[in-house]
Amino acid sequence: MKFMKVNMTDQTIKLEDVPQDYMGLGGRGLTSIMINKEVPPKCDFLGPENKLIFAPGLLSGTSLVNTSRISIGAKSPLTGGIKESNAGGTVAAALGRLGITGIIVEGQAQEGDLSILRIDKEGKASLIPAQEYRGMRTYQFVEKILETYGKKTAVLCIGPAGEYRMPLASIQSSDVDGRPCRAAARGGLGAVMGAKGLKALVVDQGGKSADAIADPKAFNEAAKVLAKIIKEEFINVNMMAPLGTAGLVAPLNSMGAFPCFNATKGVLDGWENISGEAMAELIKKRGGNTTHMGCAQCVVHCSNIFVDKKGKYVTGALEYETIWSMGGMTGIVDLDTIAQLDFLCDDIGVDTMSTGVAIAVAMDAGHKKFGDGKAAIEMVKEIGKGTEFGRILGNGPAAIGKHFNHARVPVVKKQSVAGYDPRAMLGHGVTFATTPMGADHTAGNLVGLYLTQQLDPLKPEGQVEASRFIQIAMAAFDVMGLCFMASVALLTPEAGEAFLKALNAKLGTQFGPDDFPGAMGIRVLKAEKEFNRRAGFTKEDDRLPRFYYEEPLPPHNTVFSITDEEIDSTFDF
Amino acid sequence: MKFMKVNMTDQTIKLEDVPQDYMGLGGRGLTSIMINKEVPPKCDFLGPENKLIFAPGLLSGTSLVNTSRISIGAKSPLTGGIKESNAGGTVAAALGRLGITGIIVEGQAQEGDLSILRIDKEGKASLIPAQEYRGMRTYQFVEKILETYGKKTAVLCIGPAGEYRMPLASIQSSDVDGRPCRAAARGGLGAVMGAKGLKALVVDQGGKSADAIADPKAFNEAAKVLAKIIKEEFINVNMMAPLGTAGLVAPLNSMGAFPCFNATKGVLDGWENISGEAMAELIKKRGGNTTHMGCAQCVVHCSNIFVDKKGKYVTGALEYETIWSMGGMTGIVDLDTIAQLDFLCDDIGVDTMSTGVAIAVAMDAGHKKFGDGKAAIEMVKEIGKGTEFGRILGNGPAAIGKHFNHARVPVVKKQSVAGYDPRAMLGHGVTFATTPMGADHTAGNLVGLYLTQQLDPLKPEGQVEASRFIQIAMAAFDVMGLCFMASVALLTPEAGEAFLKALNAKLGTQFGPDDFPGAMGIRVLKAEKEFNRRAGFTKEDDRLPRFYYEEPLPPHNTVFSITDEEIDSTFDF
Repeated sequence: MKFMKVNMTDQTIKLEDVPQDYMGLGGRGLTSIMINKEVPPKCDFLGPENKLIFAPGLLSGTSLVNTSRISIGAKSPLTGGIKESNAGGTVAAALGRLGITGIIVEGQAQEGDLSILRIDKEGKASLIPAQEYRGMRTYQFVEKILETYGKKTAVLCIGPAGEYRMPLASIQSSDVDGRPCRAAARGGLGAVMGAKGLKALVVDQGGKSADAIADPKAFNEAAKVLAKIIKEEFINVNMMAPLGTAGLVAPLNSMGAFPCFNATKGVLDGWENISGEAMAELIKKRGGNTTHMGCAQCVVHCSNIFVDKKGKYVTGALEYETIWSMGGMTGIVDLDTIAQLDFLCDDIGVDTMSTGVAIAVAMDAGHKKFGDGKAAIEMVKEIGKGTEFGRILGNGPAAIGKHFNHARVPVVKKQSVAGYDPRAMLGHGVTFATTPMGADHTAGNLVGLYLTQQLDPLKPEGQVEASRFIQIAMAAFDVMGLCFMASVALLTPEAGEAFLKALNAKLGTQFGPDDFPGAMGIRVLKAEKEFNRRAGFTKEDDRLPRFYYEEPLPPHNTVFSITDEEIDSTFDF
Repeated sequence: MKFMKVNMTDQTIKLEDVPQDYMGLGGRGLTSIMINKEVPPKCDFLGPENKLIFAPGLLSGTSLVNTSRISIGAKSPLTGGIKESNAGGTVAAALGRLGITGIIVEGQAQEGDLSILRIDKEGKASLIPAQEYRGMRTYQFVEKILETYGKKTAVLCIGPAGEYRMPLASIQSSDVDGRPCRAAARGGLGAVMGAKGLKALVVDQGGKSADAIADPKAFNEAAKVLAKIIKEEFINVNMMAPLGTAGLVAPLNSMGAFPCFNATKGVLDGWENISGEAMAELIKKRGGNTTHMGCAQCVVHCSNIFVDKKGKYVTGALEYETIWSMGGMTGIVDLDTIAQLDFLCDDIGVDTMSTGVAIAVAMDAGHKKFGDGKAAIEMVKEIGKGTEFGRILGNGPAAIGKHFNHARVPVVKKQSVAGYDPRAMLGHGVTFATTPMGADHTAGNLVGLYLTQQLDPLKPEGQVEASRFIQIAMAAFDVMGLCFMASVALLTPEAGEAFLKALNAKLGTQFGPDDFPGAMGIRVLKAEKEFNRRAGFTKEDDRLPRFYYEEPLPPHNTVFSITDEEIDSTFDF
């Protein structure tokens, strides 16, 4: 349990014991509570006062499956509020195996300086000048890093967009094959990293100084039970493994909740061409991989390797949200184009979701035609080149809306919504409006409840309660380093009990069902809300854009109908 | 006393009695108190919920001299907070003579619609389609309007920048010669007007239905006394009449407080070439006018007509702040270039101050060289054309700073400072930091105190108190429609007494020295602070940019040294 404090101003690195205030926190719990405590809420997000915090989950690096999420936090260049964005890959486990609870990057390098933070398998850290990598895209960069430091290296890095400090810039994370196709994509954390003068975090995966487990036997028993639950969970078996998250394309369209053509329709003509089923068929035919293990210790295998007609790698981890934003919102019903857009975004280092939505807004405003895949590819390339238009696009959908004087911009707190239209899935509207992160699906995704018919997505009753419940649970699971698929599998009382056993065995604690996920999740959410309040957010910021209240969405032809009072009660706890 | 409510959504116009809540308010008092009461503080400033309010001063349209300021208010597209920007010219008196207390423009026209609000001399108002004027610059536009409606017409209008809805867009005001060389320049009110779908307000100056004066005899007597005081005030006689506000160039340089080269120096080599004295000599030699009457009923004549070598009109009302921003900040020590930049800004409809500062930031970031007048002219032309770079520039200095990744951006609340460096004139730093308007000199300009040696600009003692006093007084005088030169002349107790007599004679009230300016100014400032607080501003927004605290300004080599605690006490009333 160590904090690594990296001061970019004087280029020093210090290891410190974790202070009492932060004991028992990992992942999003650590990033959010520390940001609320230590980052001035009105500071320049690209200045020295912002902190960029990397925190593996509390259970990352243990033998428990699917604990390979790394949380990254800072004040967001996109929303101006608090931000936690987490990514899979290999780095969380690598840090866990080194006993590193958090890496806190502070200050700011001299203008023009660029470094890599390298941590070897003994846990020794150094800042290495990285001028030769300036402007380099992520795939080439990671390839060179693996050549230099060996294949067993975990990498988090930024591409040109992060170096340009664009509000859509992501931090890309290398997967088990050493490809930077996973991302802490949302909220512009790549811009914070670029502003600090940090190109990458490069960690040896061979660490052997993980924190001791209080009761190894009990932990291993519980971990075994949990692995079985996660692996055998219904949706994971029937959708995530064979199709990945792309399996959501079909049900979302059949439910009329697939926002397309910049959220003017809920069913996309031609969705069959970009569905999970279509993608799996295409990938299989071409010899790719439909059930790829992307993250360390994963038993779900929701990832994939998308290949071209010749069987050559195009992109990895092509997910539902990217297919939705780059395909649905833009009307581009062609998987090859979408895969290329996904690769370009990963390579340049930008969020596929907000980028796709920004392109859709530009198309809706008449800049280009819906469905024009070539135009979309050119636009993303402009981001990579840092042209003037590329920089406007890199500022996100709200900036594009202002640029083209177009009001239909599906964002909350300037962050784009995800692929669940709030008019046809009311609870997602509650989550998008109220999460401190800006519109975000992972903060409280209700699609599982809708798919299993536990909740009617079109009836206002119960939506606020459901969103509140899931937001609390997700905030707690994000402390642990668990991925979304694992978290969802653990929402049953039986699974929750097994999880508590594992957690207590790891920490030597006596947490009960009131402590986790409830109290933990609420503690995290309260810190996040408090930061945003001090940054100037009010309840008026917890609102969807007007068009969701005014423009009915076909085919249900409904509008968003949760009242402001109900919305404002979501965080009543 | 009538409100004219103009609903752009359904294109209706209603005349209403002034409700009790707004009785006795004019100018900035009316705009700010109404915005705080009626505009949702988190609304989209370019959306239908924002209101654009035109309010002549309480005394506009009477026989009292120098009461020709019109206040325009809205939620600002530049700062995101409350905004009042006032302009001289002829329109305030024209509205006063029609008994119109305020024009409240609400809602939003259909996308693509553009209208003129025309008010004839009987006070009859109509919205007239104005498609043929789309994209037209202000000089040509006003010329056409005067051809159509006669020379005795007062015009407020936007240029292309307002139609593009740029945060630097101004609302231009026609002077006594019918030239749109005066401006409500700051805070992007032109963008709000453009977003409403309103190209211009066109008012006949021949109205004869002014509100009755309670005691005409007493009013006329007091007005005569005040005219003499204003006309004979020392600075007005010795600087404003012969040199205009440009007379400040010399003393500001001699005091080392003239921010130049993007606020890296306090004395400009070559300032003699762009001083008020140099300009007066040049104008006289070429046959222009150095003591021009720009506004209705003016006795100060601080305006001018700048002509070229052939004696042809180049621009009007070339003022200190423009010479500073376009000449000092950019290092362009050439009056002909500065005059051309001033004309271009007026013609396109953007704030000369924030535009000059944005250009200076771009130059400081290495985009162009300091002193490159041709480059500056090209940049302003790009705003007019609405190119991608022009749109970034039209977003203001902070946006340019982000675009070029350059941190030295002299703004508060995204609005540029004025030509008084806070490191060499500490009290201006207090005003820039604390006024609800974003950095602004008219909100509380202490230069008179420094010039007359009543206060040492380099000593922290007394600066907060002086800024507080002047901010309160200015807020009160802005209610009356008095121009800055007149307001300053009225700060003595004797003048204040005469002014109270005039005010009471006009309104039939019994206001005493506690009521005005004190209570009135405080009431206005409190409303403005409250709006900003609800819009998300905190005391952290009342701060100067970091470089003012860190980079000493030659020649005094001092930094800004007022503590945050002192700053936060400015509005303790």
